[in-house]
Amino acid sequence: MNFLEEKILLDGVIKEGNILKVDSFLNHQIDIDIMRQIAYEFQRRFRGIKISKILTIEASGIAIATLLGNLYDVPVVFAKKSETANSTDDKYVSHAYSFTHKKMNNVFISKPYMHATDKVLIVDDFLADGQAMHALIDLVHQAGGEVAGVGIAVEKGQQQGGRILRGEGYRVESIAIIDSMDWQTQTIRFRQQPERKLENAQLKAL
Amino acid sequence: MNFLEEKILLDGVIKEGNILKVDSFLNHQIDIDIMRQIAYEFQRRFRGIKISKILTIEASGIAIATLLGNLYDVPVVFAKKSETANSTDDKYVSHAYSFTHKKMNNVFISKPYMHATDKVLIVDDFLADGQAMHALIDLVHQAGGEVAGVGIAVEKGQQQGGRILRGEGYRVESIAIIDSMDWQTQTIRFRQQPERKLENAQLKAL
Repeated sequence: MNFLEEKILLDGVIKEGNILKVDSFLNHQIDIDIMRQIAYEFQRRFRGIKISKILTIEASGIAIATLLGNLYDVPVVFAKKSETANSTDDKYVSHAYSFTHKKMNNVFISKPYMHATDKVLIVDDFLADGQAMHALIDLVHQAGGEVAGVGIAVEKGQQQGGRILRGEGYRVESIAIIDSMDWQTQTIRFRQQPERKLENAQLKAL
Repeated sequence: MNFLEEKILLDGVIKEGNILKVDSFLNHQIDIDIMRQIAYEFQRRFRGIKISKILTIEASGIAIATLLGNLYDVPVVFAKKSETANSTDDKYVSHAYSFTHKKMNNVFISKPYMHATDKVLIVDDFLADGQAMHALIDLVHQAGGEVAGVGIAVEKGQQQGGRILRGEGYRVESIAIIDSMDWQTQTIRFRQQPERKLENAQLKAL
């Protein structure tokens, strides 16, 4: 089991309706040590791949994206959500349905911040149905840029986002993939992934 | 002139209606080097003050808060905004009027993430009328915690937020304070602050 799977078992709470609450360390309160390890793990999994920009979507992806930008020393862009954004000359606009909030969001980036020359690592805290991720990929493509990879902290493996994205040929690296969970017994089954241990010396360099 | 004032003059754009756009480096695209310098400057200005937690509000404060949490090695909390949040047993709720979006937002923190023992450094990218900052301070006080300081990247010195907060006795450190700006001539006058230079050796340690 890796550090994030261990943390999820320790501090995550499963709620009725297939909901995993990790807001004690990932998306409300931020456990800075876990976040550093997530950033470092992404850097290692995408080693050798050229990255010119980190992209995420507001709000909870920003912490991971910022620490990763700090490691790669490249700009970070966070796409914004709005109920009312229209396509204009100065921004790329895409759309994502939020199952959490049961509404369609417009997702946009100002054009000067995404280019045809960009090789973009897209990161987010969660991947479920992949709506937000497909919108981010669409924005990169509208700019003519290249998606170098997709880095996810927690993938809900029972939902279709990861399968679709991998089927489309994207390299998706999820640090923890939940294949099933049960709120009554508070048990989680993670998809088996190769073991990787971070060295203390590597962590100190973050 | 300090690094942030220089960056604002270089890349900020003044729009009609006293609006300063800094989204090329601060709140849409993130210039990671500028962000690191901001975090380091806060750490230096608040040197000697005990900090147990960094607090900000979603979304654009998260990047600064995360890098600062990384420096202090303490948890980061970002308060959430919602149009519909009610006070419940499990969260502290306050209110802030957004002049940008012309609506009242509820601002809340889940109770487990703010404690009576916390000494909180509150940070944000902008300070104007201080509505959001007063909501954050209120949340800390509801939990019985202590506000150790307020760190702001860009303060709009013509608006009342900074004056009120300092009058209330809070230590407010703003890296750039704009005393006036003129969109027609694209000129900005910053409030005079003591010069502070970052050493290269200190920056490398970030």
